[in-house]
Order: sequence, then structure tokens, then C-alpha cells
Amino acid sequence: MARTMSEDVLSHLGLSTTDDLVGMFKDVKFVCCGGSATRMENFAKFILKKLSSSHLKIDLPTEQNLRNICRTDRYVMYKVGPVLSISHGMGMPSMSIMLNEVIKLIRYATCTDVVFIRIGTSGGLGLAPGSVVITGEAVNYEFKPIYQLPVLGHMRSWQTTLSRDVAEAIKACALPDDGYDVVINKTMATDDFYEGQGRLDGALCDYTEEDKMDYLKEAYRNGVRNIEMESTCFASITSRANIKAAVVCVTFLDRLHGDQVTATKETVQQWQERPQQLVARYILKCLEEPQGMK
Amino acid sequence: MARTMSEDVLSHLGLSTTDDLVGMFKDVKFVCCGGSATRMENFAKFILKKLSSSHLKIDLPTEQNLRNICRTDRYVMYKVGPVLSISHGMGMPSMSIMLNEVIKLIRYATCTDVVFIRIGTSGGLGLAPGSVVITGEAVNYEFKPIYQLPVLGHMRSWQTTLSRDVAEAIKACALPDDGYDVVINKTMATDDFYEGQGRLDGALCDYTEEDKMDYLKEAYRNGVRNIEMESTCFASITSRANIKAAVVCVTFLDRLHGDQVTATKETVQQWQERPQQLVARYILKCLEEPQGMK
Repeated sequence: MARTMSEDVLSHLGLSTTDDLVGMFKDVKFVCCGGSATRMENFAKFILKKLSSSHLKIDLPTEQNLRNICRTDRYVMYKVGPVLSISHGMGMPSMSIMLNEVIKLIRYATCTDVVFIRIGTSGGLGLAPGSVVITGEAVNYEFKPIYQLPVLGHMRSWQTTLSRDVAEAIKACALPDDGYDVVINKTMATDDFYEGQGRLDGALCDYTEEDKMDYLKEAYRNGVRNIEMESTCFASITSRANIKAAVVCVTFLDRLHGDQVTATKETVQQWQERPQQLVARYILKCLEEPQGMK
Repeated sequence: MARTMSEDVLSHLGLSTTDDLVGMFKDVKFVCCGGSATRMENFAKFILKKLSSSHLKIDLPTEQNLRNICRTDRYVMYKVGPVLSISHGMGMPSMSIMLNEVIKLIRYATCTDVVFIRIGTSGGLGLAPGSVVITGEAVNYEFKPIYQLPVLGHMRSWQTTLSRDVAEAIKACALPDDGYDVVINKTMATDDFYEGQGRLDGALCDYTEEDKMDYLKEAYRNGVRNIEMESTCFASITSRANIKAAVVCVTFLDRLHGDQVTATKETVQQWQERPQQLVARYILKCLEEPQGMK
């Protein structure tokens, strides 16, 4: 971080060091993010309800006062006491911009012990649609736990380390009567939704159903249980910044049985809430029993 | 495209083959796209004004009737007669989802001779900030005109072919008293805004100012005049789909002199309109003189 600059503009958030970042953000302990702006607004309202009905003494906004803090249209960000709920768009490049700027934000705000959690959606492999996968290891298209990015003309490679403790603690928040499976397994991150995930229904496709199934089955044999577009980048950037992080995604379909989601809109909406419920329970537990968690 | 499916859902647009895609989109001749939803809404209003005040006999909405057609929060899409104005978010993965679904959309709608134009923002190299770069060649981090994506476990590589004719025709729309330079040159596309573009002001940086300058100067020597995050993917996907395409970006700063934009918000806003003006003039010319253009 260029500490010599007189002003540092977090340009995609629309915030800057001329804002009172310490005053605005010092108490942040959880950064929750997901692709969709609507989903992250809903999560902000959801966690607000949960925190409001808890016995915790926390300064909270009312739902009417809950405002998007970003001053651009690139992301939305809501603050609910110690929780930031922020969107990251789709794919690693979009997410990496948000992560860089939010990590700078929490450093400027002198936040400590912040946990980052991605609350996402994904395609599953060999799981009942609606199951939740907590990422045990984020892997690339060769099932390797690395994130690669060209920097100054050379391909760089980083480990994709996530917090096993946080993953286990979130899994422990599942209840027997929730009615869905929660597993800790490998998540594969791709740079494309169609060809990059072996779909047959994109605008371009020069492989067969058999080629696709061979690859998806190989992914399954290698322990991959869901596929999304952010986890390796998320794991790599947070771990390089010494931030504990977890990825919790619901699966909308079993890719071993198709490419398109066949569940109704209402069902998909309910499934989307599952990672939010688990993560909200985890956050509540952390705040209520600060010694035992995180 | 899986033509055997009874319904094909363009899930990130929120449209489907159960919609009357032919009735809704058959007359589309130009697909204009850019990262920001607000910018593409503004472009829709701008092109509406231009088309309304032309002598062309085209069915147009009123500004009050201009509605976002997307039924999700992933992108926004506006239709102004023969022009679609659609956002693609930031980065190639986000853009590739939009492109796949919009290409399927125009195929289902039986559109013909559609030109795709990306109207973007970028960092410049050795140009006065506010200059406009029309991409002559889209190159990757090694200055090669290729787009790479892993498909079914193997790294694939495609050419990044854009239409020279469309680029020249757009450049010819610049007027001597516009007050800014318009050049046709190489554009480098990256998968990250901070380390991926050699910035020193991200959350993570393990190289020096000298390393950065060496790389940016090497890019300049190789003919690169601006850096953004989409052009190679855009060129590759459109050319594989046999679609003529162009990329027109304004530059917000000269990266040889810094990493952050120092122009005022008002100036940046005015600069953003420059690619829109050029592209609007090009579209008007195409519609007025259909024989000579495209």
C-alpha cells in the first residue's frame, strides 16, 4: 500500500482516505460478500434482524437507515454493526478489485481480527441441488489448490489457503432439522460460466456431452463437489493479506445431470438463503462466545 | 447451442426462449456494452436522443418508456430501436457470460449483420488523459493477440480478431474540433486492476516502482496504448461467433505518470461521454448510409 500518498482513493468503492474511515468502519469484524447486489442487500437485512433480536449490545441501524455506502455503481456495501455485506460481481477480476479496496479500507480503519466470508451460489457435483458446500480447498481447472495471475509479464502462482477452523465452525452451525446437507469439500473456480465449466448450452461449444461428462467425473473423483467463479482468487488474496476466510455456497443443480437450473424461482430463492442462515448463526455465535470461536 | 432443449434459459439476463425473442429483438443491429450499469443506461438515453432527432424512420421508445429488460440484477439492458445497450460488469469472466447469452439471444431473435461495440474506460500509456483508443489489436500480458481459457482441463487459446473496418469507420467519426485525440492502437487486457496492471497502490504489492515502469514501458514499446480488463475476451468470443466487433475506450490517466485518477469527477464524467459520442455518430452514419458503412 502506497503509504506516502496524501490521499488514497478506493475508486471502485467511491471512498477515500479523506473520509473518516476509522469512525465509519473501526468496529468491523466480518466482511461478507457475494456476487449479486440484491443478495447482499438481503443478507444485510437478514443479519440486521438476527442481531437486533439477540441479547448483544451492539449499535445497529434501523432497516430504514440501512444505506448502500458505495458511491459508485460497481458494488453495493451495507454496514450492520460489526458486519459488512458487500457485492463483488461475477468472476475473479471483479472480485479482486473489491478485495483489494476493502482490505485497504479495513487497514485504514484499524480493524482487527476480521474474518472474510464469501456467501455464494454454484453448480454442484454429485450432491442434491440445494446442498451447501463449505470450501475445504479451492482448486483450479487442474484440481490444484493454486490461483494464477500474470503480474508484470510473468505468470505468478499462489496457494489458496482458507481457514479450516472457520469452515468447521460454520459447518457446526448446521442443525439436524435444517433439511439440507452441508459438506466441507473442494470447490473448483473457473474464469467462465459456459465453456469454462464444460457447459454444452453456451453460444460456443466444440466438445461433446461425453467430453464434458469425462471432465466433470474427473473433477468429482478429485474431490470437487461444486464449481463457481471466485474461490481460488478469494482464498489467495485473503491468505496473502493474513485474513481468515471461508467460502460457503449453495448448489443450484447437479452438473452431473444437466447444465440448466430446473428448480422454480421460489425454490432457488429459498436455497439462496441457506448459506446466509449458516453464516448468520456463525456470526452470532462468534459475537456471543468470542473466546471459543473464530 | 443446445437446440434440442425445449426451453433455453438465458439465466443471467433473466430471459428465455419462452419469451417472444423474435418480436422483442429482431431489429437489433448494434449491441453496445460497457462495464457500468449507469454508463450503459446513460448511453441508451444518449443514443435515444440522437436517433429521435435524426431523419430516420425508426420505432423508438420515449425516455419515460425506456426500461431495463434484464430480469436479474447481474446486468442491465436497454433497447433503443436497432441498438441494445447492455452492461457487462468488470472483467472477462463477467463479460463472457453476457456475451454468451446475448449472442444466443440475437440468434434466437434471427437478427442479421449485428455489430458489437464495447464502450469502455481504461488506463492510457503515453497519451493525454481523456484520449480515446480504438483497439487495433487486443493483446494479453505478453503483448500477444490471444485470449486463453481453460476448457475441460486444457488451456485453450484463440485469436483476438476485431473488425478493422468498424474501427476505421468509428475513427472517421472524430471531428477536428472535438478537442481530444482518437487513435487506433493496441489494447492490453488484464485479469486484475491492481497487481495485474502493475499498480503500486493495491492491498498487495511485492515489486518496485522501477519494476512497474520497466513493464509499462515495454508495453508501450510493443504498441500498447491503453489497458483495460475485457478486450481480448470480447474480440475472441465475437470473432468465433462471426460477429464484427470494435472496442472504444477513453483513458482516465497516463499510467506512465501514476496509478490513480487525479482529474475531477466532472472531467471524468465528460471524458466518459467521448466514446459514446463517437459510437453514436458511427451508428447514425450506418443507419443513414447503410451501403457505405459497417
